[in-house]
Order: sequence, then structure tokens, then C-alpha cells
Amino acid sequence: MPPPRQVFVAVVGTGGVGRCFLAQLSALASRLSQNAPSPIYLSLIFLSRSSKALYNPTYRSLPLSTWESDLDGSSQQVLTPTQIAEYLASAPSRVVLVDNTSDQALADAYPLFLRRGISIVTPNKKAFSGSLDLWRAIYAAAANGRETAAGGSGASAGGGSSTSAGSTMAPSGPAAAGSTGFVFHESTVGAGLPVLSTLADLVDTGDRVRRIEGVFSGTLSFLFNGFMPVGGGTGGSGGSSFSAEVKKAKELGYTEPDPRDDLNGLDVARKVTILARLAGLPVAAPPAAFPVQSLVPAELEGVASGDEFLARLGEFDGAMDKVRKDAAQKGKVVRYVGSVDVENNELKVGLETFDPSHPIAALKGSDNVIAFYTERYGANPLIVQGAGAGGEVTAMGVTGDLIKVLRLLH
Amino acid sequence: MPPPRQVFVAVVGTGGVGRCFLAQLSALASRLSQNAPSPIYLSLIFLSRSSKALYNPTYRSLPLSTWESDLDGSSQQVLTPTQIAEYLASAPSRVVLVDNTSDQALADAYPLFLRRGISIVTPNKKAFSGSLDLWRAIYAAAANGRETAAGGSGASAGGGSSTSAGSTMAPSGPAAAGSTGFVFHESTVGAGLPVLSTLADLVDTGDRVRRIEGVFSGTLSFLFNGFMPVGGGTGGSGGSSFSAEVKKAKELGYTEPDPRDDLNGLDVARKVTILARLAGLPVAAPPAAFPVQSLVPAELEGVASGDEFLARLGEFDGAMDKVRKDAAQKGKVVRYVGSVDVENNELKVGLETFDPSHPIAALKGSDNVIAFYTERYGANPLIVQGAGAGGEVTAMGVTGDLIKVLRLLH
Repeated sequence: MPPPRQVFVAVVGTGGVGRCFLAQLSALASRLSQNAPSPIYLSLIFLSRSSKALYNPTYRSLPLSTWESDLDGSSQQVLTPTQIAEYLASAPSRVVLVDNTSDQALADAYPLFLRRGISIVTPNKKAFSGSLDLWRAIYAAAANGRETAAGGSGASAGGGSSTSAGSTMAPSGPAAAGSTGFVFHESTVGAGLPVLSTLADLVDTGDRVRRIEGVFSGTLSFLFNGFMPVGGGTGGSGGSSFSAEVKKAKELGYTEPDPRDDLNGLDVARKVTILARLAGLPVAAPPAAFPVQSLVPAELEGVASGDEFLARLGEFDGAMDKVRKDAAQKGKVVRYVGSVDVENNELKVGLETFDPSHPIAALKGSDNVIAFYTERYGANPLIVQGAGAGGEVTAMGVTGDLIKVLRLLH
Repeated sequence: MPPPRQVFVAVVGTGGVGRCFLAQLSALASRLSQNAPSPIYLSLIFLSRSSKALYNPTYRSLPLSTWESDLDGSSQQVLTPTQIAEYLASAPSRVVLVDNTSDQALADAYPLFLRRGISIVTPNKKAFSGSLDLWRAIYAAAANGRETAAGGSGASAGGGSSTSAGSTMAPSGPAAAGSTGFVFHESTVGAGLPVLSTLADLVDTGDRVRRIEGVFSGTLSFLFNGFMPVGGGTGGSGGSSFSAEVKKAKELGYTEPDPRDDLNGLDVARKVTILARLAGLPVAAPPAAFPVQSLVPAELEGVASGDEFLARLGEFDGAMDKVRKDAAQKGKVVRYVGSVDVENNELKVGLETFDPSHPIAALKGSDNVIAFYTERYGANPLIVQGAGAGGEVTAMGVTGDLIKVLRLLH
């Protein structure tokens, strides 16, 4: 019987996703400890949020059942990313850092963590959709790095070799795995939906990805499924005004505190950037790198608060009404989509019209849908669809990544 | 720099899928051999089809570029599954057996292969949808076995714990991995679509799978998308007769040589069985274990040939016309689906009617669609859709599984 294994887990961020993740971690740890014939013991050894931290010099396990009150009551010093890396790198077992924040400073430190043998699982888009240099540094440092992905010499724009350039096996030899950490970030696109893993499988098995298209924002999905539902609102008469839909979405908790953070398209642009890079394109950071259509009227970009923005958005309903009417006259519906034309190295984020029978048109609620057009799949794409936002499903993607790392660690 | 790694590959079956797989293997082997810093050398050391075999006592690598003529010209003795296991178990490196057949005898020997340290990747449904004893023996022998899946004490019918009973980590400790092989069979359901991996992620991360429903046969998808397209054929007037659709599908190469092998529903029943077992239900072999609706008229079950069957199928078009008409009168369309009600331990395969806006109704061509209804995803299921048949995409699932095994082997 093999010896039991111990893996340490460090969690940063205890917001919506972090809270759900900690509950899932607790259930997973309990199950894996009973895993016959080789139990795995997951121990939480570090927990922090912006102003609080919990850890100890001997890496004693923190109880998962009382994390919230323990963290509330802690008076320990908050650590910088470098200090966290220092603490974790000296731990007597392999460590997985779970970054449930959207913190740029922590993202910037990923290469450091990876080089020191710490694996990373995260829904934090900052690390993967910001500067191309950071992306390259992360993958260069990771044990499952794709050396040539997104900007190796084979991945030049428009080159026929761009899709296959990204396909590099995770080196799983003992030395490679032992010296550096693994990195997974499934939840950065489509939350828990199997999007990045599917793209990686397509590329790794030698398929040629031609185009990726989809609805990547739960908020914008909800807005347009309501603003212009299939079978309703023809001629613009059926649905309510755009500003009314935004207000409804905000009331239901589907938007960011300031809805402009959804309507400016940057979140979608970040996700599209991640997909493009994984497909082998050396895409610079959005929004400068490619066209991103903002739905925030220029006149309202500068208003002080989200509330003021919402109060005045109705003044601009005319423009969106016209968009809806024009689409309806052609028998189409409007949706806010992102797309990557891999073969022509073109990314685009904004409004498009679709036939009512198109999978993107038929979306419901706040679902995401992602379509992969590839050589092997031909005219009908491989489609993944479902909830692409929410604490539980986002945390599920993180927990799934943690399980992947546990399988690779030895 | 870690030492280069050698992994041996044995391939049985060189039909449509086998042929595509060998081409994908050739590309993969070439790429992995250049994998810096830890190249992986994949060597084909055994190749066979029903009447021919190619191998050598010193496990010399067989050239992938000339496999077809080499195999044609071989006069080597064909080996039994036991002899193959014997040969492979003595190889000086880890071995992956790729079973691209639908052979029951080889499937029966999987536990033997796994116990002797040989990993298996395969699209062969026989091993996973036949007797429950074989299923249990395979997973008991595999390094990534789910001890309690499909029939452990926690997986009793209707029990709330049925879904979580199947969730067991792949033990990835060196001893566990060193002594037994891994088994993956993504292509047994939905070909290369990420279906089984998605179900495993749901279960492993602690989601509760309530129901799985979908169109699992490319042939039956094509037949019904043509027989009763959305927006057409209302009242039964639009589409052609069912027998005409079957003839068209046969001419396009979308059916088995004898279309009864598609129309009897057994292929769908096998796939549904695999999903149910992975979700934790101890389902016995179909068709005895649950209702499977055959579209082969009883009168034609005994006719001698597929051609005679096709010639006479038109005599029974009236029944299918009525099914279509009844559905149209309710504003619905008819599709041939499989479903697993995990919570109530009920499986079902046959005709169902759907609203035109339902994802199953909107399917195109010969696509598959699989919907996972789970606790976390709520009312809108997680959906995977795309081509579920064809040599290239089926082989892609096999190649993807091979890559998974390579990551786990050490």
C-alpha cells in the first residue's frame, strides 16, 4: 500500500467564489482522506483576504469548518505576494495556491510562485489577459507550460502553423514536475464550463482550430436574451427598452456594482484574449489590441457613479432601439459576442446579428455558449453551453483544476 | 534536464477509427519527440487487425509511415488477448494498449491488461456497457478506478448519495500508478466530444447530477433532423417518409451496413449505460435492464439482409407518419433520445417529443447533444454538442485519452 500523501492548499480571496471554493474544498478534503488505497490529505495552511490573514510558522492545518470566524478574529499581518511565496516555498509538502481574487499584484507574482514549485489554480483573468510578457513568463515557468504558445516563432499572425504552435505536452517527467508548479485557469472563461480544457484537447490532438465564437458574459447574455428574445419583439415592439433591461439585471444581481464594468465589453475582451492565446495567437492586452465595442454611451463614461449612469441610460435608448429594429427587419436577433478568427488572427468583441435558429440566438437566461469551429468538426461546430457565472460553478472550475493538479503531483 | 521518456503503444484494429488514430499518433509522436525540456518518445510496438499482426521480440519500434503495407505483408501469427498481454507486460517501458475494435474478447481481457501495468484507451463500448461484473473488474484493476462507482454500497437506487458515490480521485501516488494501468474511454460516448470528462468533473467536484439527456447517435440524429425538421413538416406534410430518410442516410454512409443496427437503439442504450454507471448507478447490461424502443418493425426483425429490410421498410411508414403528425399537432418535434434519471435510477431510450426551442430539437446534421442537469447548473443544463461520429473525431477522443495517460505515467 502506497504511503498517504499530503498536499498543502493556500487560499487567497474569500468573496463569492472564494467562499464557495472553501466549501467545495472541505468536501473534497474529506472524501480524499478516505481514498483507498492511497488517501490524500489536503490541508489548508494559508488563508487571506484584503485585510486579514491566517497562517502559522509550522504549517499546521487550519480548520475548514471555522475559517470565517478564525479569519475575522485574526490579527496576523497581511503578507505581500513575495512574502506569501516565501512562506509557501518552505512548506514541507507540495503546495497549491488558489487565487480567488482579481488582484493584479498577485497575478504578477505567478511566475515566482511557479518557479518555486508552487502550483496555481485560479479564476483570476488578470494574469492571462494582461500583458503578453506576463502570459509568457507564466507559461515559461510552469511545468505544464506551452513553450511556444502565443508568440513563439511558429505562432506568427496568419501563419498556418499558428494553431499547432500552442500544442505542447505537459512534461510529466519527475524532474520537471518536481522543480516547478503547474498552472490551470479553466474558470477564467465560462466559469466551470469545460472550455479551456476542450480547446487544449483540440490543439493537443492536432485538430486545426479555425474560429472560436460565443457569448462569454452572463450579464450581457441575460440583457440581450431579454432585450430581443427569439420569437418576440420583432420590429422592436416586443421587448422593453435597453435601459430597462439593464436596470432589471442590476436588481437581480446579475451586473457588477457599476453596470458599466459589464457594458464596456472589457470582461468579454479578456476572455477572448485568453482563448486566442491558448490557440496560439500572440495577442496583446485588450482593449488596445483589437476592436471592443462598448455599450456605454460616450456621454456617460465620465459620470461619477453607477447609480447616476443607470439614471441617465434611458436618454440613449434610441440608439439601441434602432439596432434592434434593423435586426428585426432582416429577421435576425442581436447578441453581444466575442470571436477569434484564428486563421486570420482577428479578434472582435461587440454586437452581431444572428438567425433565430443559430445556437447563439437560442440561448436562455444568463447562459454562456462557446462554439469551436475546427477542421475535424467541419461546418457544425463543437459547442459548450451553460451557466458561465456564479459562485458555485466558478468555484467548481477551480476545484476541478485543483483535482487536475493533485493527479499530476507526485 | 530530466531524462527522455519512452512509452510503448500497442494498437489493435485498423478500421475507420484505427486508421485515423494511427495518423494522429504519428503526428503526436513527432511533436512529443521535440518536447523541450523533456522529450517523450512514443513507439508503436504492436499492431494487429483480425487476421494480421506485426510485432517483434525485442520491442523494436514499428515505422508509423509504412504500417499499412508492413501489416499487409506480415505473416506473423495473430495473438490472443492473453498472449498480447503477455507480450506487452514484458516490455521494458510502460505500455498503452489502444483498442480500436468493438471486440468482446479483447474487452473481457481489460482487467488482465490493467493488472499487468498496461494502460488502455479505447472507443470500444463492449467493455463498459456489457456485464456489470466486467465493468467492476475493470475499474477495480485500474489505477484510476472508482472503487465505489456503479454498485458500491453507497450507490443504491434512488439514494441521495448515488451521484457522489462514484467520485473517487485517481490515486496518483507512485506505487499505485506503477503497479497498474490507467483506463480512459472518452470516445465510447459522443466520440471526441468532452462528455465523460465533463461528467467526471461534475461528480469529482461534488456537484449532484440529477439527469442526463441527449441525442447519442449520429445516425438517428440525422434521420430525425430530416424526418421532422424544426419549422418544417408541420402536420407531417413537409418531410419525406421515414423509410426514405433511412435510405438517404444509408446512401450517405451514415448508417451501419445493416441499418437495423442503428434503428434497434442498442448503440444508444450502450452509451446511456456508460453514463449512468459513471454517475454511480449500478445498471445491468442493456437492453434487458431498461426500456429501449426499437424502430425496427417486429415483422422485419427476422429478414435475412439489410437490403431486404430497406426494401420492405416503406410498408411500415404509416406508424412513423402518425408519430410525426401527433407531435406536430402539439407543436412539437420528434427525436430519438436517451436519458438517465440519476435521482430515480431510471434509464430510457426511445422517441420523445420536444418544443422547437429545445436544444435537442434544434440539432443539425448528424450532431450529438448531451445535456447535464445538475444541482449547480440549475434549470439550464450544461450542454455539449457537435459531431458524435466519424473516424477523425472518434480517433481524436482516443488520442486525447492517450495524452491523459502520458501525463499520469511516471
